[in-house]
Amino acid sequence: MQVIDNATTPIATLPGIVHRTLAGSAAGLSHLSVWRQTVAPGAATPPHFHDCEEVVLIARGWGEVRAGCGTTLRFNAGQTVVIPTGENHQIVNTGRAPLTIVGIFASTPVGTFAPEGTRMELPWKS
Amino acid sequence: MQVIDNATTPIATLPGIVHRTLAGSAAGLSHLSVWRQTVAPGAATPPHFHDCEEVVLIARGWGEVRAGCGTTLRFNAGQTVVIPTGENHQIVNTGRAPLTIVGIFASTPVGTFAPEGTRMELPWKS
Repeated sequence: MQVIDNATTPIATLPGIVHRTLAGSAAGLSHLSVWRQTVAPGAATPPHFHDCEEVVLIARGWGEVRAGCGTTLRFNAGQTVVIPTGENHQIVNTGRAPLTIVGIFASTPVGTFAPEGTRMELPWKS
Repeated sequence: MQVIDNATTPIATLPGIVHRTLAGSAAGLSHLSVWRQTVAPGAATPPHFHDCEEVVLIARGWGEVRAGCGTTLRFNAGQTVVIPTGENHQIVNTGRAPLTIVGIFASTPVGTFAPEGTRMELPWKS
């Protein structure tokens, strides 16, 4: 059992996105990863899918999730997004303030893939 | 893919604890449960363990986690607790304000057991 100070976890970035892995394989886990990300206004994740289920907690801000099938769902702080394994999605900050989300995954490390199936190399592990 | 308003999820209670399942089997998940709980000052969970890994995000407040082996770890908002499968633990609000935590589990429904191994029947599902 351990307590991790979130502020001590390494920061990684993608354009418009600041990432921290709050917990994952580096913390001794085998089946869970937890990411915290802040997405700048107007920024978005690349379209992608994962090899496991994902739950996204919306901690702050507004945005939308665009599914590969053309469906778009809006969300805001106090809501939770459930994304099945293998479902393409893109998270977009449509607000004027930073969007802070907690991504929860049923795997560690998390496999992330571009919509056509190519594995994406992300600048963080697990 | 779906967006769930946390405020629409059912509330369940244990003494001193208000619980919501933000996501779990009822949301179509097979491998993840996410619980949000508020623990009143001085209140605590019963000692227990789970049949899966757990990550606890400390959203607000202060407290400590007491492991079955006698170890006690303090935590506060902005920290994350990692609890291995099968490890006995009890979460206690040692502060003067409500303690709000998000419990993340690599299973759904989550199996919860008393330290001696008896399955605990909780007033919420998954």
